[in-house]
Amino acid sequence: MIKFNEKAPYAPVEYLYDVEEILYKGKSKFQEIMVIRNPHYGKMLILDDVVQITERDEFFYHEMLTHVVMHANPCPKKVIVIGGGDGGVVREVLKYKTVEKVYFIEIDEEVINISKRFFPTVSSGIDDPRVEINIMDGADFVAKRKTPDIDAVIIDSTDIIGFARSLFTNEFFTSVKNCLSDTGMFVTHTESLHFHKDMVIEIQEALKKVFPVVDLYTAPIATYPGNWWAFAVSSKGPSPREIRSKTEMKTKYYSDEIHQQSFMPRGMYERLMQRKLEW
Amino acid sequence: MIKFNEKAPYAPVEYLYDVEEILYKGKSKFQEIMVIRNPHYGKMLILDDVVQITERDEFFYHEMLTHVVMHANPCPKKVIVIGGGDGGVVREVLKYKTVEKVYFIEIDEEVINISKRFFPTVSSGIDDPRVEINIMDGADFVAKRKTPDIDAVIIDSTDIIGFARSLFTNEFFTSVKNCLSDTGMFVTHTESLHFHKDMVIEIQEALKKVFPVVDLYTAPIATYPGNWWAFAVSSKGPSPREIRSKTEMKTKYYSDEIHQQSFMPRGMYERLMQRKLEW
Repeated sequence: MIKFNEKAPYAPVEYLYDVEEILYKGKSKFQEIMVIRNPHYGKMLILDDVVQITERDEFFYHEMLTHVVMHANPCPKKVIVIGGGDGGVVREVLKYKTVEKVYFIEIDEEVINISKRFFPTVSSGIDDPRVEINIMDGADFVAKRKTPDIDAVIIDSTDIIGFARSLFTNEFFTSVKNCLSDTGMFVTHTESLHFHKDMVIEIQEALKKVFPVVDLYTAPIATYPGNWWAFAVSSKGPSPREIRSKTEMKTKYYSDEIHQQSFMPRGMYERLMQRKLEW
Repeated sequence: MIKFNEKAPYAPVEYLYDVEEILYKGKSKFQEIMVIRNPHYGKMLILDDVVQITERDEFFYHEMLTHVVMHANPCPKKVIVIGGGDGGVVREVLKYKTVEKVYFIEIDEEVINISKRFFPTVSSGIDDPRVEINIMDGADFVAKRKTPDIDAVIIDSTDIIGFARSLFTNEFFTSVKNCLSDTGMFVTHTESLHFHKDMVIEIQEALKKVFPVVDLYTAPIATYPGNWWAFAVSSKGPSPREIRSKTEMKTKYYSDEIHQQSFMPRGMYERLMQRKLEW
């Protein structure tokens, strides 16, 4: 188990939203699930009091989590999506015509059901014939796979506490590596550079013990505390900074330019890892 | 007067901070001034209920507001700083050995006094002999200057409502242009790309009526709502994307790499101005 600051993901600011209407409130085996309506964001999905997605701006996170690893791959065919029961990442992955199979692994089936009911534009790809849904712990799914034929493993977890922790262990990272094709990539969010810099560094360090190439990019996500969101991306060799896929597709934020610009500058990355960035 | 959405800078989220201690609370001629202590951020300066600076992370905003225009200038000598009574921008400007004169124009003297008392690391440059303090409306100061010898005009205003509005008019932009040297640059913040995209666009459009070169860069500011903060920068010709000053100095966030990376990619900028970015 990687040693995290136990307080993370504590944020030094609370975000308050107007609630026009509570559309759903229930408890699954894993968490409290709520759907509310906000005058600016439209419908918002909230798990254990943490905003997961909003109708209005979910694309920032889903596009940036998906398209960097997918564009860094010359021809992505098989993809594993772990978490992201709302279906946002699955929707983005299906934009690639080369994709033949999406293993969609979600531990909490209730999130899928709620997303189909309240967020049809997000969950739209879940019933695509290329998608195989498995309701189970993503760590178990990956541990059982032995063929290195996966082109992208994408983790769309909740905050890195509680049951999501099984996705942030050396064992899990090793299982993921064993699944990946030579050009395959692995990506996960790692919280905010403003509020959880130590966690961002620790996950980079843990990944470096397993993968020869580990890198970091960021995106501005308005509804995640600290906003300046960090993504860790790993591969067996190819750099994720390079775009190898020529796929044309509709996105609202992601573009080739954003792909390149979102990576942390090399000098700054070195200072980060040497713990020389002071804030 | 530029036509703004009257609701801006309304933010669809409220930020809540723990208050360990209220260190100061008072009312100046212009606004309510408060200094509090927060367990994460240390001391925080709050004007009319809006967080202006925190001890811990003020450098993100002050560095990014100052060093882009200063580094884009081959030899900055004379600088006008309007607003920023806390002194943070003045401190950054004084890091350049070439700087001979800083005209520091603040409408509210109380902010300077409070900053000297509670934020000595921010206000440290205010009493430097190169600094000339003028307590007045920045628009009036600039309108009276007729010599085009200023290398940087830096606006560090509060949100673009109330008395700060005099700094966002065509008349003011024209006065600024008349002050600038041929290599001089003008910079101002323009709120958040997440929450005030229309205002960001409108200010770019208004600046384009006066300046031949207008551009946009961003920085992640955790305590400003929406976080993904936009800066408008203008010149009579030289591109602000290019670094021309060779000054070595200590910064925590700004670097040559960040300078270049902070500018909005050209294709995205075009889509923004064509109002094709949907969020």
